[in-house]
Amino acid sequence: MTVALLSIGTELVRGEIVNANATWLADQLTQLGLNVEAIETLADDQDQLVKGLRDLDAQHAYVIVTGGLGPTSDDLTAAAAAKAYETELVCNEAALGAIRRCIAKRGINLEAGHEKQAQLPIGAEILGNSIGTAPGFMMDRQGGKTFFLPGVPEEMREMFVQQVVPRVRESATHNVVQICLHTYGAGESDVAAQLAGIEETHPHVKLGYQVKAAQVDVKIIGRGNDYGEAQQRSAAASAVVRERLGPLVYGEGEETLAQVATRALRSRGWRLAAAESCTGGLIAKMLTSQPASDFFVGGAVVYANMAKTVVLGVSEDTLRGHGAVSAEVAAEMAEGARRVFDADIALSITGIAGPTGATSDKPLGLCYWAIAHPGGVEVEHNVFSGDRNKVQEKAAFAALNSIRTVASARG
Amino acid sequence: MTVALLSIGTELVRGEIVNANATWLADQLTQLGLNVEAIETLADDQDQLVKGLRDLDAQHAYVIVTGGLGPTSDDLTAAAAAKAYETELVCNEAALGAIRRCIAKRGINLEAGHEKQAQLPIGAEILGNSIGTAPGFMMDRQGGKTFFLPGVPEEMREMFVQQVVPRVRESATHNVVQICLHTYGAGESDVAAQLAGIEETHPHVKLGYQVKAAQVDVKIIGRGNDYGEAQQRSAAASAVVRERLGPLVYGEGEETLAQVATRALRSRGWRLAAAESCTGGLIAKMLTSQPASDFFVGGAVVYANMAKTVVLGVSEDTLRGHGAVSAEVAAEMAEGARRVFDADIALSITGIAGPTGATSDKPLGLCYWAIAHPGGVEVEHNVFSGDRNKVQEKAAFAALNSIRTVASARG
Repeated sequence: MTVALLSIGTELVRGEIVNANATWLADQLTQLGLNVEAIETLADDQDQLVKGLRDLDAQHAYVIVTGGLGPTSDDLTAAAAAKAYETELVCNEAALGAIRRCIAKRGINLEAGHEKQAQLPIGAEILGNSIGTAPGFMMDRQGGKTFFLPGVPEEMREMFVQQVVPRVRESATHNVVQICLHTYGAGESDVAAQLAGIEETHPHVKLGYQVKAAQVDVKIIGRGNDYGEAQQRSAAASAVVRERLGPLVYGEGEETLAQVATRALRSRGWRLAAAESCTGGLIAKMLTSQPASDFFVGGAVVYANMAKTVVLGVSEDTLRGHGAVSAEVAAEMAEGARRVFDADIALSITGIAGPTGATSDKPLGLCYWAIAHPGGVEVEHNVFSGDRNKVQEKAAFAALNSIRTVASARG
Repeated sequence: MTVALLSIGTELVRGEIVNANATWLADQLTQLGLNVEAIETLADDQDQLVKGLRDLDAQHAYVIVTGGLGPTSDDLTAAAAAKAYETELVCNEAALGAIRRCIAKRGINLEAGHEKQAQLPIGAEILGNSIGTAPGFMMDRQGGKTFFLPGVPEEMREMFVQQVVPRVRESATHNVVQICLHTYGAGESDVAAQLAGIEETHPHVKLGYQVKAAQVDVKIIGRGNDYGEAQQRSAAASAVVRERLGPLVYGEGEETLAQVATRALRSRGWRLAAAESCTGGLIAKMLTSQPASDFFVGGAVVYANMAKTVVLGVSEDTLRGHGAVSAEVAAEMAEGARRVFDADIALSITGIAGPTGATSDKPLGLCYWAIAHPGGVEVEHNVFSGDRNKVQEKAAFAALNSIRTVASARG
């Protein structure tokens, strides 16, 4: 049972955006034990799409098409599908009803573009879209099934999980299990060196590495004759990886560092405040990507020195004597945030994100961060490489990792 | 002259890494005026590769293959190429010499894997690799040329620029010019409806649309006999698009809404403060992605009611009487931020990002945002759809757009 993906969009073949949809789908399908053999990307061009669909359908049991279902004139997927399956576009009443309900909920009017979205090939089975107006559809064709999903990532993902997975589940062998461990604090080659030999002692397991800004992901991919065996093999190798890497591993699977830090705070019942200078709100944003009212009191983005003084009570003497980017100011910021927000623990960060602001003794990327907690204040520093956004991201990661460590470790 | 890309790698079809190589190449080729029609991604499987190569060669003047040239046993590209071109692999002396020089420079020994890298199809023309050991090669085949480049991004990019570009330059037309306008405030079908007919009155221009969270990009792609004509046609159509869409258009090209809002503030000499509740620091983060010290005083992320009161001076009566998500609290937050940070203009936002927190009269996604400026306070509200992150993103966009409008419009 092989699978092919067909990603449609002129913006993709012109290199304007990365094809993240295909990567996500390929990962999901692989985890289901399905074998993705090909990923094809084509422009919004009807002849190309017809040919592409026919070629892929002829070779693969499942073809998953994304994109080109929108309301505008450059959305040609449904028309191409009709031609590929030698049928016609008709107004699909089920699709039109779903579109009507969606736009009524949003309080907007039905427009010509919406009606176009209900024009689907004869024989199309509707795949519900719980988020947007574009209905997906499926063609049950000779030798397999072809699914047509919207290109908007959230809609595509939701529709894949809700509508496609149940329809391909029977073919899923589920004999591959992947565990992804997230590490922080060491580079890729260092992590790989610490894991040398594991593939030899676990012959059905492969290790993979992926570097993401400040973290390295370790993928442990186990195969077996069935799901249980694959799971057992992955789990056994994962345990060895965790043992070797120790505290470098901060999480697994979908967990983010912010979530792990949050969990550590919650298990303490600690309420956090943040005082950010060079990260400009990034840490607060990472913490509040998930519901955070129960542990996050608030934060101050204190860009100007005046703001550090007025909002957090950092002393003007300290600012003058040590500079805004200093261990002393970081400590006073954290203590100030803890006091002002009446928090149990407070995090501060101050640094030179660039591209300007470096001096002879304070290089670009220098960041100080501090954690004020019931037991005192701890300050750390590092010089992070990369452009402004990379420095901000690495600094935010470092600070969240300190939160995780402090909240996990102390009695 | 059409171009196809063929990306080879099991890690790609398994969804382990995003195909950033293809996106980079497609962008480069498009900028040269070449027309990328298809991007194909295949696993390291010899039969699939042979078939894929033959299909693409038959349809495209240039095919650029990346990946599978390494020293290990799963690198099958050269063998597949030999089969596709009905020839044999032989030791290419030029390639072996280049590999020897490369590894001598690194001080390592010649290994079997390196010798394998010199095994290339008869008739292959070597493409030098100034970075790594894998030599690239080109097959001058019927109807065009096929280039084989390494998958390592730095090596691929260097080889493309040094070796491929000079060989395809004669075909580069440089006769396509794309202008991308960013709009905010209307949906994709609404924007498209307002631009109906432009493609008919500008026959050499195509319009494309791309939805990004709260904004819709309009792409104006003009073609001509040369660059000048293409540019003129794009510019003429772009002027019509701008006229029709009026204030919906906030920027062009690489400009972000945060940059446009920033420019409006700078031209006023206004210093900004931000008070965020439901966006949790996202607005501050967007504003500080670029250097911001000259206009951004600071911000408060006031998640808890206590933080709204203590840091910004929002009255407890207002919070009790109207609730944290209300026009009254938004106004007091903005006025408080303007006062505390001693700013010229302040932005506030409070809302229900979800997934919990909705009540019978305050639905999920309801957000109030306020701008306090020298002329007073203005409050707006909307109900944004989507999950927590989407609501946050849409709310941040709405607030930044209000900043842009207020800073641009007032005398």
